[in-house]
Amino acid sequence: MSSLGGTARTTGRRLPELASVNEGDLHAILDAALVAHICVIDQGQPFIVPVGFARANDVVYLHGSTKSRLFTLLASGAPTCLTVTLLDGLVLARSLFESSMHYRSVMVLGSCRVVRGSEKLTALKAISDHLLPGRWGDARLPNAQEDKATMVLALPLDECSVKISSGPPEDSAADLAREVWAGVVPLTENFGEPIASDDLAFDIDVPDYVQRWKR
Amino acid sequence: MSSLGGTARTTGRRLPELASVNEGDLHAILDAALVAHICVIDQGQPFIVPVGFARANDVVYLHGSTKSRLFTLLASGAPTCLTVTLLDGLVLARSLFESSMHYRSVMVLGSCRVVRGSEKLTALKAISDHLLPGRWGDARLPNAQEDKATMVLALPLDECSVKISSGPPEDSAADLAREVWAGVVPLTENFGEPIASDDLAFDIDVPDYVQRWKR
Repeated sequence: MSSLGGTARTTGRRLPELASVNEGDLHAILDAALVAHICVIDQGQPFIVPVGFARANDVVYLHGSTKSRLFTLLASGAPTCLTVTLLDGLVLARSLFESSMHYRSVMVLGSCRVVRGSEKLTALKAISDHLLPGRWGDARLPNAQEDKATMVLALPLDECSVKISSGPPEDSAADLAREVWAGVVPLTENFGEPIASDDLAFDIDVPDYVQRWKR
Repeated sequence: MSSLGGTARTTGRRLPELASVNEGDLHAILDAALVAHICVIDQGQPFIVPVGFARANDVVYLHGSTKSRLFTLLASGAPTCLTVTLLDGLVLARSLFESSMHYRSVMVLGSCRVVRGSEKLTALKAISDHLLPGRWGDARLPNAQEDKATMVLALPLDECSVKISSGPPEDSAADLAREVWAGVVPLTENFGEPIASDDLAFDIDVPDYVQRWKR
């Protein structure tokens, strides 16, 4: 089970009204994002790197090169943080001070374990199904050499926080009387028209499963 | 001047072909993003938090609450990393191993200084002009109380790396002969129709400067 807002480290002191303790929100935000940011500390210096990922049950799976410094450090069990942020809009209050953004954000604290054995293929399929749904049954699956070059890590959803910012701008009573437009400008992420590679050996249409992708 | 790929800490060992040493790319990526992820270490545990920001010349400005733990730690000069990632598309190779994403990413290492005096208003205007262009001349500017509650930090672009992934999938010669569609599915971020607050005291149209916003 995930600890949502349950530990001193994940209980935000600021803006507690934005903190959600709903596991459905946690899962929905992770499942809606394509990219997470994950951190390692190397000789006292933190590094934040974007990574593709997938959630499966109560774990987040990441995959990367066995030669990557990030993955090598994470594999050693170093304390890490994985954060996912979905930006949903800009909030224009009558005052700049109250202006803000709509977002949904998840922070996961913990350390990774290296995924081995049969769980490794399960994890790679979960990542493929999350980022490229339908592709697993169409593209060539990893061969032995590629499998050896790939490290898969699992970060358990044991210590998490969720923040959701939504709703209209909240100006003070005095500012409400100002003759300034206020509201929200939504932000959406959209897929464009697929662009086929020039070197397709056959005349192949864009697959139905790709046509169905929506953000 | 920014050090692009110039130090051991920012010289990627993996995929060096993606590393850019172009300051124009560095600035363009920072200027195209609305949100950055920034990190602090607290008792050995890293935390990654999303923040609005703006670049001005060779510095990134952030603003937050003086009561925020993140900002308090950053203000103390703690080593930090700020990463900006723009996701541009999904790359569908014929093999899952070569499948990837198009992205533009910037990583800035260093530590923040607290911005005071006249530079503080300059920084707040830079952030407003970046996130909400045109709004500074329309919305109410910060009053003394709000100014006191706001901390502004500057992170110099002294030690940075830039990575840009673009282009078609790169399958092996053997995989090119497969009867599998391959290509790129672009991802774009778009503004939706502005939604006016219910409590507008006047009949005010959406301002022209907002109508002009494009992602």
